[in-house]
Amino acid sequence: MEFTANSIAALVNGVVEGDGNVAVNTFAKIEEGKPGAISFLANPKYTHYIYDTKSSIVLVSKDFAAERPVSATLIRVDNPYDTVARLLQIYEQAMAQVPTGVEQPSYVAEGVEIPEEAYVGAFAYIGAGCGLGKGVKIYPQAYIGHNCQIGEGTIIYPGAKIYHGCKIGKNCIIHSGAVIGADGFGFAPQPDGSFEKIPQLGIVEIGDNVEIGANTAIDRSVMGATRIANGVKLDNLIQIAHNVEIGENTAMAAQGGVAGSAKIGKQCMIGGQVGIAGHITVADGTQLGAQCGINRGTKPGDKLLGTPGIPVMEFAKQTVRLKRLGDLFDRVDSIEKELNNRKS
Amino acid sequence: MEFTANSIAALVNGVVEGDGNVAVNTFAKIEEGKPGAISFLANPKYTHYIYDTKSSIVLVSKDFAAERPVSATLIRVDNPYDTVARLLQIYEQAMAQVPTGVEQPSYVAEGVEIPEEAYVGAFAYIGAGCGLGKGVKIYPQAYIGHNCQIGEGTIIYPGAKIYHGCKIGKNCIIHSGAVIGADGFGFAPQPDGSFEKIPQLGIVEIGDNVEIGANTAIDRSVMGATRIANGVKLDNLIQIAHNVEIGENTAMAAQGGVAGSAKIGKQCMIGGQVGIAGHITVADGTQLGAQCGINRGTKPGDKLLGTPGIPVMEFAKQTVRLKRLGDLFDRVDSIEKELNNRKS
Amino acid sequence: MEFTANSIAALVNGVVEGDGNVAVNTFAKIEEGKPGAISFLANPKYTHYIYDTKSSIVLVSKDFAAERPVSATLIRVDNPYDTVARLLQIYEQAMAQVPTGVEQPSYVAEGVEIPEEAYVGAFAYIGAGCGLGKGVKIYPQAYIGHNCQIGEGTIIYPGAKIYHGCKIGKNCIIHSGAVIGADGFGFAPQPDGSFEKIPQLGIVEIGDNVEIGANTAIDRSVMGATRIANGVKLDNLIQIAHNVEIGENTAMAAQGGVAGSAKIGKQCMIGGQVGIAGHITVADGTQLGAQCGINRGTKPGDKLLGTPGIPVMEFAKQTVRLKRLGDLFDRVDSIEKELNNRKS
Repeated sequence: MEFTANSIAALVNGVVEGDGNVAVNTFAKIEEGKPGAISFLANPKYTHYIYDTKSSIVLVSKDFAAERPVSATLIRVDNPYDTVARLLQIYEQAMAQVPTGVEQPSYVAEGVEIPEEAYVGAFAYIGAGCGLGKGVKIYPQAYIGHNCQIGEGTIIYPGAKIYHGCKIGKNCIIHSGAVIGADGFGFAPQPDGSFEKIPQLGIVEIGDNVEIGANTAIDRSVMGATRIANGVKLDNLIQIAHNVEIGENTAMAAQGGVAGSAKIGKQCMIGGQVGIAGHITVADGTQLGAQCGINRGTKPGDKLLGTPGIPVMEFAKQTVRLKRLGDLFDRVDSIEKELNNRKS
Repeated sequence: MEFTANSIAALVNGVVEGDGNVAVNTFAKIEEGKPGAISFLANPKYTHYIYDTKSSIVLVSKDFAAERPVSATLIRVDNPYDTVARLLQIYEQAMAQVPTGVEQPSYVAEGVEIPEEAYVGAFAYIGAGCGLGKGVKIYPQAYIGHNCQIGEGTIIYPGAKIYHGCKIGKNCIIHSGAVIGADGFGFAPQPDGSFEKIPQLGIVEIGDNVEIGANTAIDRSVMGATRIANGVKLDNLIQIAHNVEIGENTAMAAQGGVAGSAKIGKQCMIGGQVGIAGHITVADGTQLGAQCGINRGTKPGDKLLGTPGIPVMEFAKQTVRLKRLGDLFDRVDSIEKELNNRKS
Repeated sequence: MEFTANSIAALVNGVVEGDGNVAVNTFAKIEEGKPGAISFLANPKYTHYIYDTKSSIVLVSKDFAAERPVSATLIRVDNPYDTVARLLQIYEQAMAQVPTGVEQPSYVAEGVEIPEEAYVGAFAYIGAGCGLGKGVKIYPQAYIGHNCQIGEGTIIYPGAKIYHGCKIGKNCIIHSGAVIGADGFGFAPQPDGSFEKIPQLGIVEIGDNVEIGANTAIDRSVMGATRIANGVKLDNLIQIAHNVEIGENTAMAAQGGVAGSAKIGKQCMIGGQVGIAGHITVADGTQLGAQCGINRGTKPGDKLLGTPGIPVMEFAKQTVRLKRLGDLFDRVDSIEKELNNRKS
C-alpha cells in the first residue's frame, strides 16, 4: 500500500510543501530515513536531522522554519506527534492480522460463551462463570479465573493472569506477564513473631480504555475493590497494592509502586520508579518526578521531586546547594579562624 | 449464610454492645458500609466513619470510646484487625471453591505421583522426579521443573515458574508470575570485555508458611542454596539474588531488592523499593523504611531510612536541615558581610 | 565422576600445593565445605574460612599468602573466580540433561520448521513465520509470536514471552517471565485529558550471547527497533523502554530502568535499581552505582552515585557533609551569638 503526500495531507488536515505526488509505503525515524518512508519531527533536539534525512516525507509542525533547504516533502500539521499517532493507527489497522476463533488446545469452562469476533489462543484458560464482551482477544497462555468479566474489545496478551472475580472494562489492553488480582499483602502479626494471613476477599475493578504494562501487578483488595478508573495508563513492572484507587486518565511510568489504600487522583503524571506511601491521597493533576518518594498527601497541581518529595523548583535549588555545601563548610571554617584571630 | 452479632462475638471472644440479634452475611469497608454487612475499625484515621456507617455490625477495640451515638451493633474485641482476619478466614473456608483433581491437558512426567486432595490445572507442567505433598494446588500454566519438592498444602498460582531442583516447604503460597530458581547473575569478565557465564548449580530452598508475591524473582545459587526461612512474607516484584539468605518471619514490601550473598536476619520489616547491597548482614529485627539503600551491615533493632541508610530520627532531622539549607547560606553570607564591614 | 587435584590443575593451568591425589566430586561454598568438594576463595572477606574449611580442595589466587596452616589442598590460579566458572561449565555440561524433541501438546504454526537438536516444551506456542536456529530450546509455556527469529543455541525458559516480529541472536538465554516486545508506553494527550495510544510498530532486536533475567521487560519501539547489542547481560525485573539502545557487553543489575530513546554505551556497569532518563546518552564504560538516578548524559568512564548522579567520590564527601550538617548549623548559631556579643 502506497500513500502520496497529497493523500496523507488530506487524511490529517495538513499542508503540503514540496512534491505532493511523492509516495511512501512505510515509516522511519527521521535519523534513519529512507526513500519511500515518512518521518516526523516533534522533538526540537532532532531538528538537525531534517536537512539530511533520506525519508521522502516529513511531518513538521506549522511553525517549523527551515534554516537550510530540505529535500523531503514536508507536511505541516498542528501537532506532528499527534498526527503520526493517527497515521500509525490507520496503518496498523490496515496491516494487522487480527486473530479470531478458538485455537486448540485451550480451556474454556462449561457454560462460558465465546462471543463473536473473539479470539482464544492455544493454552489459554477461561474459568467458570466468566463473561466475555464482543471481540475480546485472549492470547495464548493467558489465564482468566472464574467469575471474571472482560469488556468488549479488550485484549489480554500472552500469559497475562487475571485471578477470579475481577472486572475489566472495554477496550483495555493487558500486556504479557501482568497479574491482576493476586492477594494483597496483608498479615496480622502474632505474639510469636509469625504472621497470620488476612484473606483478601475483594477484587480488582478496571475501567474502560485502560492499558496495563508487562509484568505489572495489581493486587485484589481485602474487601471491596482495588479500582483503576477509565483511561488510566500503567507502564511495565508497576506495583499497585490492595485497596488502592487510581483516578481517570492518570499515567504512571515503569517500576512505580503505590502502597495499600492510597488514593491517586485524576490526570496525574507519575514518573518512573516513584514510590507512594499507603493511606495517603495524591490530588488530581499531581506531577511526580522519577524516583521520588511521597509519604503525605499532595495538593492539586503539585509538581514534586525527591524523597521525601518537595516542589521541583525547591529540589533544583537544593541540588545546587548540596554542590556548594563543601564550600559552605570552608567558609564557616574561615569565619571561625577570622573570629579567633580578631579575639587574640 | 448469615451470622448474628451474638454468634460472631462467641466465635471471636468479643462483647456485644447493641442489638445482638442483628445478622450479617458479608463484609464491607466501614466507609462503604451497608445493611447486612460487618465492618471493622482499626485505624484511628477512619474513626469518624463509625457514626454514619450503614453496616449492621462494627468490630471495635475494647477501648474505643464513642463521642456520638453509633447506630451499628458493636462487637468489642482485643484487636479488631486480628479478629477480622480470623473471621475472613472462616468465611473464606466456608465459601471457597477448593479445586481438586487433574485438569486436561496437563503435563505430569512419568513416575510423578499426584497425592490426594491435590489439584493440577490445565496446561500445568510437572517435570520428572518431582515430589508433591498432600493437597498441593498447582494452578493452570504453572511450571515445576524436574526434581523439585513441593510440600503439603502449598499453592502454586497460575503461571508461577519453579526451575529444576528447588524445594518449597509446606503451606506456602506462590503467586502468579513468581520465578523461583532462575540463574543467579554471575559472570566472569574476560580480557576482551565480554562476560563468561558462571553456571548456577545451586537451588532455592523455601521453608514452610512462606508467601511469595506476584512476579517476584528468587534466583538459584552458584552452589548450595538461596534460602528463604519459615514464615517469610515477600510482596510483589521483589528481587532476591543468588546465595541470599532470609531469616524467619521477615516481611518485605513490594519492589525491594537484595543483592547476592546478603544475609537478612529474622523478624525484619523491610519497606517498599528498598535496596540491600550484596555480601552484607542485616541483623535480626532490623526495620528499613521505604526506598532506603543499605550498603553495610546493620545492628539488631536498627530503624533506618535514606540512601545510604541512617537512623530514622536522624533522617527526619536531616530532612528539616535540608529545608533550612537555603537559610543557612543566607546566614553565612550575612556573617561574611558583617565581618567585612567591621574590618573596614 | 571424580577429579583429582592434579587433573583439575592440568585443566585450569594451576599449581597444586598439598596432596595432588585428593579427589573431589562436587562443589561447595568455602564456608559450607565438606570432604570430596572443591571450593574457591576470591573475595578477601571470606579468607578466614580457608583455615577451617572441610573442603578437600580450594582454588586460590597465585598471590594468596596463608597466615596459618591450611588442611585443604590448594590449587593456585591467576583468577579463582574465572577458574571456578570454567570448572562449573565443564561440570554442568557433563551433568546436564539437555532436553530435545517436541513435547505434546505444543503449538507450532504450520510451516515453522523445528531444526535439529531443538527442544519445544509442552504448552509452548510458536507463531507463523518464525525462524528457529539449530539447537534452540523453547521451554514449556513459552510464547513466540509470529515472524520472530530465534538464533542458534538460544534458550527460552518456561513462560518467557516474545511478541511478534522480534529478533533474538545466537546463544542467548531468556529467563522465565521475561517479556520481549510488548508495546512501548506512548500516548498522545488529548484536549479532554484522555490519551490516544500511539501504535508501536517497531520491534526488539537482541544480539548474540545476551542474557535476559526473569521478569525483565523490553518494549518494542514506535518505529525501527529497541536494540540490545551482543554480550549484554540484563538481570531480573529490569525495564527497557521503547527505542532504547544498549551497547555491547553492558551489564545491568536487577530492577534498573531505562526510559524511552536513551542510548547506553558499551561496557557500562549499571547497579541495581538505577533509573536512567529518556533521550540521554550514557557514554561507553560508565559505571552507575545502585539506586542512582541519571537525568543527563555521561562522559566515558564516569562513576556516578546519587539522584541526580554525581561522581562517586563527591557522593562520599556529600554523605559525610550531610552527617556534619547539624554541627554546621550549631557552628553558625555560635558565630552569630559571638558577633552579637562583640557588637554590644
